[in-house]
Amino acid sequence: MSVRAEPIGVAMLGAAFMGRAHAHALRILGGPAGPGGPGDAAPPRLEVLVGRDAERAATAAAGLGFARSTTDWQAAIADPAVHLFDDVGPNDQHAEPIIAAARAGKHVLCEKPLGRTADEAHAMWTAAHEAGVVHATAFNHRWLAAVRHAHDLIAAGRIGAVRHVRVRYLQDWLADPDAPWSWRLSRERSGSGVIGDLGSHLVDLCRHLVGEIDEVSALTRTWTTERPGGTVDVDDSVDATLTFAGGATGTLSASRVSHGRVNSLTLEITGESGTILFDLERLNELRLIVAGEPSTEQGLRTILVTDPGHPFLRDWWPPGHTLGWDVGFVHELHHVLQAIRTGEPITPLGADFEDGYRAAEVCDALVRSAAGGRPVRPVYRAVGA
Amino acid sequence: MSVRAEPIGVAMLGAAFMGRAHAHALRILGGPAGPGGPGDAAPPRLEVLVGRDAERAATAAAGLGFARSTTDWQAAIADPAVHLFDDVGPNDQHAEPIIAAARAGKHVLCEKPLGRTADEAHAMWTAAHEAGVVHATAFNHRWLAAVRHAHDLIAAGRIGAVRHVRVRYLQDWLADPDAPWSWRLSRERSGSGVIGDLGSHLVDLCRHLVGEIDEVSALTRTWTTERPGGTVDVDDSVDATLTFAGGATGTLSASRVSHGRVNSLTLEITGESGTILFDLERLNELRLIVAGEPSTEQGLRTILVTDPGHPFLRDWWPPGHTLGWDVGFVHELHHVLQAIRTGEPITPLGADFEDGYRAAEVCDALVRSAAGGRPVRPVYRAVGA
Amino acid sequence: MSVRAEPIGVAMLGAAFMGRAHAHALRILGGPAGPGGPGDAAPPRLEVLVGRDAERAATAAAGLGFARSTTDWQAAIADPAVHLFDDVGPNDQHAEPIIAAARAGKHVLCEKPLGRTADEAHAMWTAAHEAGVVHATAFNHRWLAAVRHAHDLIAAGRIGAVRHVRVRYLQDWLADPDAPWSWRLSRERSGSGVIGDLGSHLVDLCRHLVGEIDEVSALTRTWTTERPGGTVDVDDSVDATLTFAGGATGTLSASRVSHGRVNSLTLEITGESGTILFDLERLNELRLIVAGEPSTEQGLRTILVTDPGHPFLRDWWPPGHTLGWDVGFVHELHHVLQAIRTGEPITPLGADFEDGYRAAEVCDALVRSAAGGRPVRPVYRAVGA
Amino acid sequence: MSVRAEPIGVAMLGAAFMGRAHAHALRILGGPAGPGGPGDAAPPRLEVLVGRDAERAATAAAGLGFARSTTDWQAAIADPAVHLFDDVGPNDQHAEPIIAAARAGKHVLCEKPLGRTADEAHAMWTAAHEAGVVHATAFNHRWLAAVRHAHDLIAAGRIGAVRHVRVRYLQDWLADPDAPWSWRLSRERSGSGVIGDLGSHLVDLCRHLVGEIDEVSALTRTWTTERPGGTVDVDDSVDATLTFAGGATGTLSASRVSHGRVNSLTLEITGESGTILFDLERLNELRLIVAGEPSTEQGLRTILVTDPGHPFLRDWWPPGHTLGWDVGFVHELHHVLQAIRTGEPITPLGADFEDGYRAAEVCDALVRSAAGGRPVRPVYRAVGA
Repeated sequence: MSVRAEPIGVAMLGAAFMGRAHAHALRILGGPAGPGGPGDAAPPRLEVLVGRDAERAATAAAGLGFARSTTDWQAAIADPAVHLFDDVGPNDQHAEPIIAAARAGKHVLCEKPLGRTADEAHAMWTAAHEAGVVHATAFNHRWLAAVRHAHDLIAAGRIGAVRHVRVRYLQDWLADPDAPWSWRLSRERSGSGVIGDLGSHLVDLCRHLVGEIDEVSALTRTWTTERPGGTVDVDDSVDATLTFAGGATGTLSASRVSHGRVNSLTLEITGESGTILFDLERLNELRLIVAGEPSTEQGLRTILVTDPGHPFLRDWWPPGHTLGWDVGFVHELHHVLQAIRTGEPITPLGADFEDGYRAAEVCDALVRSAAGGRPVRPVYRAVGA
Repeated sequence: MSVRAEPIGVAMLGAAFMGRAHAHALRILGGPAGPGGPGDAAPPRLEVLVGRDAERAATAAAGLGFARSTTDWQAAIADPAVHLFDDVGPNDQHAEPIIAAARAGKHVLCEKPLGRTADEAHAMWTAAHEAGVVHATAFNHRWLAAVRHAHDLIAAGRIGAVRHVRVRYLQDWLADPDAPWSWRLSRERSGSGVIGDLGSHLVDLCRHLVGEIDEVSALTRTWTTERPGGTVDVDDSVDATLTFAGGATGTLSASRVSHGRVNSLTLEITGESGTILFDLERLNELRLIVAGEPSTEQGLRTILVTDPGHPFLRDWWPPGHTLGWDVGFVHELHHVLQAIRTGEPITPLGADFEDGYRAAEVCDALVRSAAGGRPVRPVYRAVGA
Repeated sequence: MSVRAEPIGVAMLGAAFMGRAHAHALRILGGPAGPGGPGDAAPPRLEVLVGRDAERAATAAAGLGFARSTTDWQAAIADPAVHLFDDVGPNDQHAEPIIAAARAGKHVLCEKPLGRTADEAHAMWTAAHEAGVVHATAFNHRWLAAVRHAHDLIAAGRIGAVRHVRVRYLQDWLADPDAPWSWRLSRERSGSGVIGDLGSHLVDLCRHLVGEIDEVSALTRTWTTERPGGTVDVDDSVDATLTFAGGATGTLSASRVSHGRVNSLTLEITGESGTILFDLERLNELRLIVAGEPSTEQGLRTILVTDPGHPFLRDWWPPGHTLGWDVGFVHELHHVLQAIRTGEPITPLGADFEDGYRAAEVCDALVRSAAGGRPVRPVYRAVGA
Repeated sequence: MSVRAEPIGVAMLGAAFMGRAHAHALRILGGPAGPGGPGDAAPPRLEVLVGRDAERAATAAAGLGFARSTTDWQAAIADPAVHLFDDVGPNDQHAEPIIAAARAGKHVLCEKPLGRTADEAHAMWTAAHEAGVVHATAFNHRWLAAVRHAHDLIAAGRIGAVRHVRVRYLQDWLADPDAPWSWRLSRERSGSGVIGDLGSHLVDLCRHLVGEIDEVSALTRTWTTERPGGTVDVDDSVDATLTFAGGATGTLSASRVSHGRVNSLTLEITGESGTILFDLERLNELRLIVAGEPSTEQGLRTILVTDPGHPFLRDWWPPGHTLGWDVGFVHELHHVLQAIRTGEPITPLGADFEDGYRAAEVCDALVRSAAGGRPVRPVYRAVGA
């Protein structure tokens, strides 16, 4: 199926949590399990890792499997062995390198949120679009089997026109007021707090599964403003209502101070004729009810999404042998590499920079609504506008 | 413990679902199990049932255990054998009879929502207050053991100052567009739709467990406007954000078209140091996490609320022998009768007409916010104001 | 539907936990909710309570709603106002009074286990059979809506011929070695320990839902032999394999020292084409899977057994308003009273003394198997044999 | 930490499900995530894949990442580049190649069940022991974080001396009578049916977590004897009681015809002071209760086993980012490679051939007990005996 004999060379900016996740996924590709089946012909070639400190970058490159390292992202972009520039750095290191890479003709993959603001994201989208390169935003949850299964069920009309969308992404790692400060708690470096970090995932899933968001009304709070290491000037939690272009309404909540919720992204989507539930903490499961059963046998069923008929599963293990959170990245990176190899489009199954930009407009709307105490309608600009 | 030798005589207006629930609870009181233990000295005396059709009222009275029936609620109020007037009729039959009963010196218990509007509820509160009678709004979920346990844990500071309040009351009985019209679908008769019906329960529980609500921002939808038997002019679903006087924020959703949710009132309340979860479909359970456990042993625990140390349980069965939804009414009516007998106050554990009124202000605010497309701050008036 | 104008007079021996449960159920009958609908024409008449101490019996009679009390069970049996003799006393007070009552022509209801041994139970069955009276063993779990629904689904062939039967009844009230001694811990008074107490429920449900048991192989343990107040000479736990006449195999476990299991009777029954699960701690739920769904939508569904189409539910509340454990007794006692009134048979939906006896044979087989270290086949005798 | 500069060369016999799982794990080792952290110095070298058909073996070798392939396992054993012989072939291809490999001085890893019978397993153990090579049985569930956490909690006395052990491994892939025949359904090729396939996992976990098994009493059934492609002469299901040397009792069930259970290995282990629950379908979770909490706050808690303090987790992702079933193999193979590199012992955390042999004795005892209709005590021989 491969139409490109030569392996795709990858440069990666950043080597922290997301760097390890991407590199792990790239290592699995072409191996005994996962997309394409055993021994995909041309696994990617991990060319160069970009870091800020030369020594640490060299160590990280060795650890993550890159051939070499640099502190100069412009050199990495200029490197002819590099075809794909994968930006997994902090949010304030997305726009400039990505735009430069795209303009240099490199395909670009960027972690979410695409930019710190919709403006940044729009500029990135415009640059990539004008350069004609493949561009993708790393909304990894789209690439979980249960989420894709939910997508396919909804798209097939299995629950009818969507009415209710209730989404939450709750974590607890900032519940302790003594948890240390990091760049994720700085508006300058992150753009926003939980809105861009966790909320952007929710927004993308809403758009992917249900459709465009018309209006938001949000509340935010910063529960701890001083932490060891710095001052927090971003939101710790957000609660909002959502109006969808298709008519549905819903609520969105995200928090990093939710005791008992370690990494709980939950979706409850109800349509005219059924409901679908998902929880990231049990990512191999999907709960479903569809109208039409006898009333005495009706109830939400728990589907273990490990059947060969389920998305992605044919390439993994027999039924019941569950997958981890990491596998979303395997599917996602495979998709990006395939798009580069074959010209197949990133969207609508994956998220491109337009999706990253549109999610950013909603995130900005959440910020503005909370600041202004009123509903806000995101305005979606055209590319280059 | 009884300070009143003579049994309390009860008149009831209405004999449908809620009439059966109240009468069932009254029958259990003074029996072998439940509040007060076996053989409470003076069970209530069911004097007169008020209905609109003489024949059906007579049948209902026989079935529910009332001594006699009438179609004239004024006669029932005038009856000297009646001490408590219990209004379980449709919402448009609350204000006038309740106000008359209070003015006649009868104690009054009224099903929720107290009035169709905050104005009606305020008039009812004022009348009962000025008459000096015992007045109670039948927010029955306060009287479930798990909810009371949640209340007590929060009040004791077990989860710290509350930050997140996410409440939902989802049912599915209107999901079928061919489900027939009823008075609950008429603004004239009900005041509102799901907001007054299910939302008022959520508002009362928010106020009971967390505190006063400062502001709401709501969306409503009517998904099916024509049903067999009539036109629907009330909301089928509501989604809202909430701001609490104490600083917490949250979301509220209620719907009668939620496939897979038969009668699911869920509470998720997170404070500085813990989280509490409740689901009415599993009303004997409470889920709890409290900070401070070793991180390797931390997780939400599922408490079966059937221990003698749990609220109300000492009067029922040994641990593990679960209670039904009906028992909330047993506890509630016992509380009202005790208030009449002993002069103990209805509040703060129970809801009086002020609570019914304040919930109505929030419900009205939800309606107005949805209509106006902007946040609304409920204004709470003083009694008689 | 009632064919007997005069109310049925009840004598009850015992007034502890089970006495309260039966009296509570009798009080609910004929009331606003429950079997027969509002106002069953002829509720039972609670005539006389039999206790061992005159003063305490008088207090209990008042509390449970009986007209009078006695310490002389023979007098209660001789009382012409008594039609039904309900024995809820300790196991060593079953055989003699029940046999005498039956011979006096009284209908008899007896708590489980019917006798301390199969021999006792057989004598009781024979006496009742020969007297031609209505006889019933109070296996109350048959009368829960979810269990009856499971029964009906299995009987209708919904899961095909049964293959696997895995049943457990786990409690934790003896997990604390300082929990005090009681008659339930004495072989002389109880016959056996957890086998007769909890195991008999499991055996009856196996027989009711699946069919006759052919062979058992059991292990028992007494984990704490000395407790405050006495010496324990009965089993605290039992684990066994079961062979069914119909070909199924399975396991049975019962324990009163199972931390985390307060009152957890679980059933897992798998047939050729489906599986049914039940847990007493969530007694309003049944989990079901039936072969034939698309493999991508297959999963155990959780049915909230509160639909009007579910057993018993039409007489209670609208969907989603859950019932308590106590309601099993309401249904059970209604069934016994109906059998007396109308001549309808106790079996197969209810358990008669033959069922009590057959369960006792299996319980005896469990005891003998554990003692002998080998499988034992229960031998079922005919009545009078 | 590595004491061996040169990578370990691996030969693998077999390339089906387990071959893919092992090769996938080997590929992950030394990569960006997993044991040892990013960039373990000397990842293994996949030298040669042994298959029965030359062409298919060549394809498989390419797919799984082996340098070359052969149909001659003796050549693979003789290959000086091979240090570890990993047998993932069908059960009838375990004993002869493994014994030969060990005698040739190769370290040996063998999929479970070690042999088709205890005799075969004993011969393998003896050969490996006498050769002085590292030997390991691939009981992969020991290497899941939640199972290891359970092990550590029990070993630390967190639930006290174990009393109850209830284990089940239920699958549904043979529930359809038209599911095709395979070598797993042949006594000649497999040794036994579900006993060796799934039961051996349970036996090993019982031994690992609780201790040695003294006696078993088992029932087996073959529910479908003719399938497309062949005759089934092994057990489809087994139900048994277990007696442990340490005093605990329990039940064991395994089945491949359990509708609704796709890959559900469940453990319920209760000790004097607590209970631990595990379900393979939710392998990132452990449920725990420990005595000593206030009775009003007691309940089974659900621990998401993704904390850095949990076994293995420090080398993976931040809390809440769940792992898949495959990761057990990563940990297991890392352990085997470490044992080869450093001389650290396989046991007690891993399973060696003695463990494989002892599990086989219990499996044989289950087979004999079911055949003979009586309890059987496994007799454990010494090595070489």
